[in-house]
Amino acid sequence: MKRKATWYHAGCDVCVSAENGLVAALDPQKLDIDLVDLGRARTRIDEARRRGVKTLPALVVGDDVFHVNFGANLSDLG
Amino acid sequence: MKRKATWYHAGCDVCVSAENGLVAALDPQKLDIDLVDLGRARTRIDEARRRGVKTLPALVVGDDVFHVNFGANLSDLG
Repeated sequence: MKRKATWYHAGCDVCVSAENGLVAALDPQKLDIDLVDLGRARTRIDEARRRGVKTLPALVVGDDVFHVNFGANLSDLG
Repeated sequence: MKRKATWYHAGCDVCVSAENGLVAALDPQKLDIDLVDLGRARTRIDEARRRGVKTLPALVVGDDVFHVNFGANLSDLG
């Protein structure tokens, strides 16, 4: 079954590197990935916070949050 | 082209969760993943350090190191 996932990022170098190296290698048959740039989609910052995101970039799959390296604190965005 | 990747972990809860939720969702057509439990394969701790791993679990793809959440410091293993 294909699961929904959300990749929250801030457009930073660390975010772009992780998106190119890790997110691009995810299996599209397993995950349906929504890419969200919180620097632009600022109305979704609260959504990310509620889902448990502390730092960016992060991949959220169901209730699981995977913080990947460190690009920025979510709290620095708003 | 299929790339080689190495998943370094320490068998910890955070490691297992990330392996099940993230590594299991990687595309086997894009990455050929070597799973390495550094708690057992202690001779590979130096290899992980040389490749830039600081904390576990971490996925290394080429020169890129993706630290996922925080399970343990590599320096705590040896």
